[in-house]
Formats: sequence, structure tokens, C-alpha cells
Amino acid sequence: MKNYDGYLIDLDGTMYRGTESIPDAIEFVKRLKQKGVPYLFVTNNSSKTPEQVADYLNHFGIEAEKKDVFTTSLATVEYLYANHPETSIYVIGEEGLTTALREKGFKFDEQNPEAVVIGIDREITYDKLAKACLAVRNGALFISTNGDVALPTEKGLMPGNGAITSVISVSTQTDPIFIGKPYSIIMEQALKALGTPKDKTLMIGDNYDTDIMAGINFEMDTLLVHTGVTTKEILEEKKRQPTYVLDTLAHWMV
Amino acid sequence: MKNYDGYLIDLDGTMYRGTESIPDAIEFVKRLKQKGVPYLFVTNNSSKTPEQVADYLNHFGIEAEKKDVFTTSLATVEYLYANHPETSIYVIGEEGLTTALREKGFKFDEQNPEAVVIGIDREITYDKLAKACLAVRNGALFISTNGDVALPTEKGLMPGNGAITSVISVSTQTDPIFIGKPYSIIMEQALKALGTPKDKTLMIGDNYDTDIMAGINFEMDTLLVHTGVTTKEILEEKKRQPTYVLDTLAHWMV
Repeated sequence: MKNYDGYLIDLDGTMYRGTESIPDAIEFVKRLKQKGVPYLFVTNNSSKTPEQVADYLNHFGIEAEKKDVFTTSLATVEYLYANHPETSIYVIGEEGLTTALREKGFKFDEQNPEAVVIGIDREITYDKLAKACLAVRNGALFISTNGDVALPTEKGLMPGNGAITSVISVSTQTDPIFIGKPYSIIMEQALKALGTPKDKTLMIGDNYDTDIMAGINFEMDTLLVHTGVTTKEILEEKKRQPTYVLDTLAHWMV
Repeated sequence: MKNYDGYLIDLDGTMYRGTESIPDAIEFVKRLKQKGVPYLFVTNNSSKTPEQVADYLNHFGIEAEKKDVFTTSLATVEYLYANHPETSIYVIGEEGLTTALREKGFKFDEQNPEAVVIGIDREITYDKLAKACLAVRNGALFISTNGDVALPTEKGLMPGNGAITSVISVSTQTDPIFIGKPYSIIMEQALKALGTPKDKTLMIGDNYDTDIMAGINFEMDTLLVHTGVTTKEILEEKKRQPTYVLDTLAHWMV
């Protein structure tokens, strides 16, 4: 077992499970904090601001502040700022995404935007989708915060942002740039925010298809913890295995 | 040139172009009427009732009544009635689809439907899409009136029903049964409504990918008329050619 200088840590399924806490994960983060090891929570959730996510974590007894949380909305904004700092944007999304774009100083334009940015929007309308389609057909850059097709809720699996995004990609026959896990942009931006070297940083998560594949795609070491969606049976069938596999984060020495 | 006992005729691009009339097409239909040759207008538009479509045709000087119009909503309802007459339905769609289902006596159920039926709905909401996803995941039959990805309007190409349908198919990883052109179900139902034998009926349309492919898939003779979307250049590249190609319906003898 290698020593790591920093950790990128998934949230749902890793730090908590829906509305249920995972005590071993809470203890693990306490150990990181005590030893002064840098970490960042990395989430595909674009709807909440980092403050709102930190509040939610506090409610499970996990100490967290705004600066400990890296959402795919932040990754989207950092990516845009680095590559297209002056672009005008038509945004479909909730508070986490619109706030992040506004705070970074991006201009919004509904009629002739240079970029379309879409995140989960539970107030989606035909008019919003039509505006996005017209802009993309008109050559606008097309960015989607994440490709998650389903969103776990108490009522069952609801349509995720990847499914809503498909209205635009199918209609315009244009693929978006996806930012969130398993894509590399969020990893690159999160690592930059964390500040530790890639080969000294570990990506921890419960979901093989998003968390672990994000690490593998970005060529980082990965730790799959069996407290969430990916079971041992599912993991066995995967060609590319995580660097480490644990039943619980209680077994991980810091 | 073979003699045909009956005709299936596309509307937009064939009988009119947007808000513009096509005089040669109007004359063609007059000749059919005078000679007593049966015909049926076949449209992928699910939003309007046959009465509304007939009114729209009258406005171009095309004589048409309710009975002359076969919409994909009618095809959907006939298909359901033939195969699942007792099924309860969660419907997403506009007046043409909901009216057709109601008139045939189908029961609606938002919570535990046995079938989900989707047609273009410009009042689409996340809640409607979520209900459809939950039902499809729960095993409901999944039917979509048509797979058109774009809808031509004065403002440009808007998202079509095929694009909206992809939210459900991508999220649930379940393919729908598509009813409209180029799929065969609408052709089968339209031919049944027209009442002429398949090998004595001609499918006429301007769009290779929908109208002509519908005829080819259903193994009917086809006539492509260059008054709409498919140009000669596009047609040249197609492997499977229509039975006949004309610049205008003025040249077709009845």
C-alpha cells in the first residue's frame, strides 16, 4: 500500500448512502483531517452549491466547508474560464450551476449564445430545450455537466442530466463535452483545486462506472469501496480493476 | 408505369411546404377524387386531430375530411387496440394523441400504467418524463408515436418527438416501439384503413428517410417527389432507390 499525499472522495455511496450515514467513512475523513492530509469531495451533482453540499454533509456529522467540496458545476466553470473566458452562455440548470457561472462573471445570452451549458433542471421546459437546440445548430459550444442517465431518489430512478442532455444531442446530432465523472475534465480541475501531484493522489468511490472509471481514464490510482452501488459480483466482471478494493474505509491507513 | 388502386400520401413537403401550397399536388389529388381512386394522407404529426389536419388542408384549397387523414396518433391507437385492447396508459402528448386514445376507450393511469405512450408535447415537464421513466422501469410497454428528431418551424429546427423520447430510452436503457414513418406500424394501419391491396398501393412522399423508407421497409412501391426535403443530390447517394422519382406530381397519370 502506497502513501498518498491527497485524496479525491466521492459522496453518495461513499460518504453516505441516500439519507443514511456511513460511520467508517466519517471516521476516515476525521483521520485525514487530524493528520492534515488534503482531500476534496468530488460530486457529479450540479444542482447544489458547494455551501449547500457542505451543509448536507454536516447533517451526517461530516465536518465540511465550502472549500472541501468540488461539484461538477465548479469543474464546468473552471473549464470554461480556462478555455473560453469571454464566452456568452445559455444555461439550463439549477442553482448550483447558475450560481457558479454568475460568480465567475460569465455573461448570459438566451438568443445568440456562444455556448450552451446544461445541468440537471427539474424545471425543464420544451422552450428551454428548443433554445438550446437552436443555439447548438447555430454552432454554439455544447457542454453538459455530467452524463448520468438516472438519478436515485426515494421514489425510484428519475431521469438524470445525461438523459435530458440527449434531447439536444439526438435532435442536433452533436455530442456534448461532458465534464463530470467518468470524464477527465472534472478530475483535472479537482486535482488542480486540491494541489497534490497526480501520482500521489488517490480517487475513492463506490461506483465503478463513474468514480473508478474517472480515475482510470485520468490515469490516477483508485480505491473502490463496497458501501454503495458496485457489488463484488459486478466488479469481478470488469476488465480494468481499481488499484485497491475495500469493504469499508475503516481498513484504510492514513 | 404500373396502375395503382390506392395511394398513401405524405403531407408536409408533398401537399404543401410549410405555409406555402404546391398547386401540382392539389391538382393531383383532384384527379384522384374525380376518378374515384382511394387515397389517404399519412402524417407523423401526432399533435393534431384528423379534423384539425383536414381543416389545415382545406386552407390550402385541398379538399379533405376527417376520414381522409391518417395520423400517427390514429396508428398508435389502432396498434394498441389490436394488440393490447385492455391496457392502461400513461400518455405524454398533445390533443391529437390524447383525443385518439380517449375516443377508443383506453383507460388512463398515471401511477401504475401498463403502457407509456409518448408523442410530441410542447408542455413537457420533468415530472411527466419521470413518471414515464418509472413506469418503463416497472415493465410498462413503451410506445413512441414517431422518431423524428427535429421539427421544422419558422424559428428553425425544434426538438422533435424522437429527441424527447430519448430521455426515457436513454434513462431506462429501453428502446420504444416506434409507430410512425419510416417504421412499418403506421403503414400497416394506414393500408388497413385505406383498404386496397399492398401490391396495388403506392406510397408518395418528399422525404427519403421517412416516407420512402417507410414504403421500402413495408415492401410497398414508392414515389419520391422533389418538392420537399430530399434533393436529387441526396437521393443519388442512397442505395435503395424509390420505385419512381418525379419533380412534381403534375407528371403522374392516374
